[in-house]
Amino acid sequence: MIQIQAERLLSDLRTLAGFGAYKTGVHRPTYSSDDIAARRWLMTRMQAAGLEAGMDGVGNVFGKRPGRGARMLSGSHLESQNQAGWLDGAMGVIYALEAARVFGERYPSGEFGVDVIAFADEEGHYASFLGSKSFTGVIGDEEIATIVGPENGKPVQEALQAAGLQGVPRRLLPADHAYVGFIEAHIEQGNTLEATGKTIGVVTSIVGIWQYRLIAKGEQNHAGTTMMSRRRDAGLALVRLLAAIDQAFPAAAGKYTVWTTGSIKLHPGAKAIIPGHAEALFQFRDEDAGLLARLENLLTQLVADANAAGPCEVELQKISASTPAAMDPGFQLAIERTAQGLYPGSGMRLPSGAGHDAQWLARKMPTAMLFVPSIGGISHHWSENTSDEDLVRGAQVFVEAIADILASK
Amino acid sequence: MIQIQAERLLSDLRTLAGFGAYKTGVHRPTYSSDDIAARRWLMTRMQAAGLEAGMDGVGNVFGKRPGRGARMLSGSHLESQNQAGWLDGAMGVIYALEAARVFGERYPSGEFGVDVIAFADEEGHYASFLGSKSFTGVIGDEEIATIVGPENGKPVQEALQAAGLQGVPRRLLPADHAYVGFIEAHIEQGNTLEATGKTIGVVTSIVGIWQYRLIAKGEQNHAGTTMMSRRRDAGLALVRLLAAIDQAFPAAAGKYTVWTTGSIKLHPGAKAIIPGHAEALFQFRDEDAGLLARLENLLTQLVADANAAGPCEVELQKISASTPAAMDPGFQLAIERTAQGLYPGSGMRLPSGAGHDAQWLARKMPTAMLFVPSIGGISHHWSENTSDEDLVRGAQVFVEAIADILASK
Repeated sequence: MIQIQAERLLSDLRTLAGFGAYKTGVHRPTYSSDDIAARRWLMTRMQAAGLEAGMDGVGNVFGKRPGRGARMLSGSHLESQNQAGWLDGAMGVIYALEAARVFGERYPSGEFGVDVIAFADEEGHYASFLGSKSFTGVIGDEEIATIVGPENGKPVQEALQAAGLQGVPRRLLPADHAYVGFIEAHIEQGNTLEATGKTIGVVTSIVGIWQYRLIAKGEQNHAGTTMMSRRRDAGLALVRLLAAIDQAFPAAAGKYTVWTTGSIKLHPGAKAIIPGHAEALFQFRDEDAGLLARLENLLTQLVADANAAGPCEVELQKISASTPAAMDPGFQLAIERTAQGLYPGSGMRLPSGAGHDAQWLARKMPTAMLFVPSIGGISHHWSENTSDEDLVRGAQVFVEAIADILASK
Repeated sequence: MIQIQAERLLSDLRTLAGFGAYKTGVHRPTYSSDDIAARRWLMTRMQAAGLEAGMDGVGNVFGKRPGRGARMLSGSHLESQNQAGWLDGAMGVIYALEAARVFGERYPSGEFGVDVIAFADEEGHYASFLGSKSFTGVIGDEEIATIVGPENGKPVQEALQAAGLQGVPRRLLPADHAYVGFIEAHIEQGNTLEATGKTIGVVTSIVGIWQYRLIAKGEQNHAGTTMMSRRRDAGLALVRLLAAIDQAFPAAAGKYTVWTTGSIKLHPGAKAIIPGHAEALFQFRDEDAGLLARLENLLTQLVADANAAGPCEVELQKISASTPAAMDPGFQLAIERTAQGLYPGSGMRLPSGAGHDAQWLARKMPTAMLFVPSIGGISHHWSENTSDEDLVRGAQVFVEAIADILASK
């Protein structure tokens, strides 16, 4: 068994949480001074662990173990959502760092080792998964040059320049890389582990997220003088469609399928004006690509029914559709076995409801994710938390599973 | 028969439309320089017609026919909605001015006459019906002092000062006034006249408008990691309630009842976050106070049902409830008879779906309203219009009906 140092792990997590501390969480938007300071601190911790450390042109921090032995790549992201939790992303980076340290201590000549990567902007202050998409070659310089932060309205180039990263090359995963695989630890962000009394989540897949804009077009008019029979109320058309979705989706959905209307906007949005235009943002998620397609068919049918019923025109616009990313079966088994060996009954398999950097790495190499419980299922909020005991257990399973995987190669 | 001068009427309407001209309509918010200039121009037209003219401390312009004979009070408002029509309000003021003129010409010694009032801010750039509420004593200095424009954020006191009206006394309707009644002409703003081929609307009543805020309180959470079974989606709770209203209201409503959801807001309104809070603005209108109360009972029951179904808490907040204002039966008959006599088959009775200054005057004296057709039923938009022929016919019926009413006193 390869033992982690619990005190060192927790100490690093707490130090990292000091960069942009906000209540009991952190506020560390991508490329903010706190984010860049955290990335520079991480480089010093990597160097102290004997890794070669560098930050690339999109802020990805890479820590490389010298030598030629079997290598696992591991990491997550360092920035946070606004006023959010201290563990989302950060935990996966520090787990990877701890893994690199214990392997470095156990195998000083480098027969087995872990390289560490802290991605930038998984949270999308500029563009979701910018760091992992850059690293895996999904996004290139031309596209990056056009990115403008959706919240702050700032071009990403301006933010990179302010962070001193202008002209710094981006580090890309070579096509002929020799990694055994990629592994990312993360808080669950839901309460499935907590509700079932488990402490180690073995992620089966990262769900596909399909997102749509529902648009209803009617006729703006006076809410007093326009009789009901001649109205073309776009807001009402949208409400009826959303109610039809609410009725029809449960029967078509799978056990872990989720669907959400996050935004509804009526135009012009005044109390005495019949809306002439209405829009909603709608998404659903599942790990089964076939089921996602069937749900899209159902949605298309409901929109067609709405158009047939009239009197408004309803339109379905697809915004995005990500492919579910299956986690490597051998890696899943290794994590599950390790969890069972160290803490019997602690593990369970579950899909990841959220997107993660791992979904991009999964296109390039065998990939796995390990979840630890989120207290109360809370995430994307400063009160997000996980008990120290669960943090330490998770890291121990994480490191031992990596050892198991590397040893079997 | 007392004949109007069509050319003079149309010329005044077109001159007035020059103040704040916008495309084929006007943009003349209350107390804007265009609005104040229009009010000062109106005073010169009143004086030219032999009226004593003045503007009071809230911008109401009053034109008084000297003498002691039977008097009708007539008018409407002068300001417009933003980028809206040239006739909404303005037409009723110019009809009243034309009536004052023709009575002045016919009865130079003042046995019969019309006084003219152009109210301020019926449209609510500061407070809906500010002028007519001030004139009828519904609102006083203390309350006026607290008004801030909901769009421009400007205190009304500041706007009045800029318009040179600070310290000018407000003109109030005396308790012992001797008016026979009040009559207001207005464009219909709907298409009931046009759809039935009529040109003169005899308003039976001004509807009561009851307005509510529907609030759903749930739990904000991650749209990917929060399973459907444990969600408390405030947006979904609101959609279900609005769908239930859509189902239940038709059976409970009357022939002319209208109900509208003008605004829906989900908080935080992001595509990947389950809304924790949701609000809608909902209103219904009818001329029958009993029916309004029954609709409120129904709404209260639907909200109770939503709370019983859970899992979100739904709240009903009453914003306002105006009393329907019945128009004087004798006045209605006089307009109807006049329309039939001048243009057989031209008249029809209908409720006013919108609120009007006349609803406040109706509390103080017998009151009537006459509608002319709105082309395509369009209002609150710069393309609002009425044919010259309908404008002239409407004014002729208006003046003749006033003559009929005054002669019968």
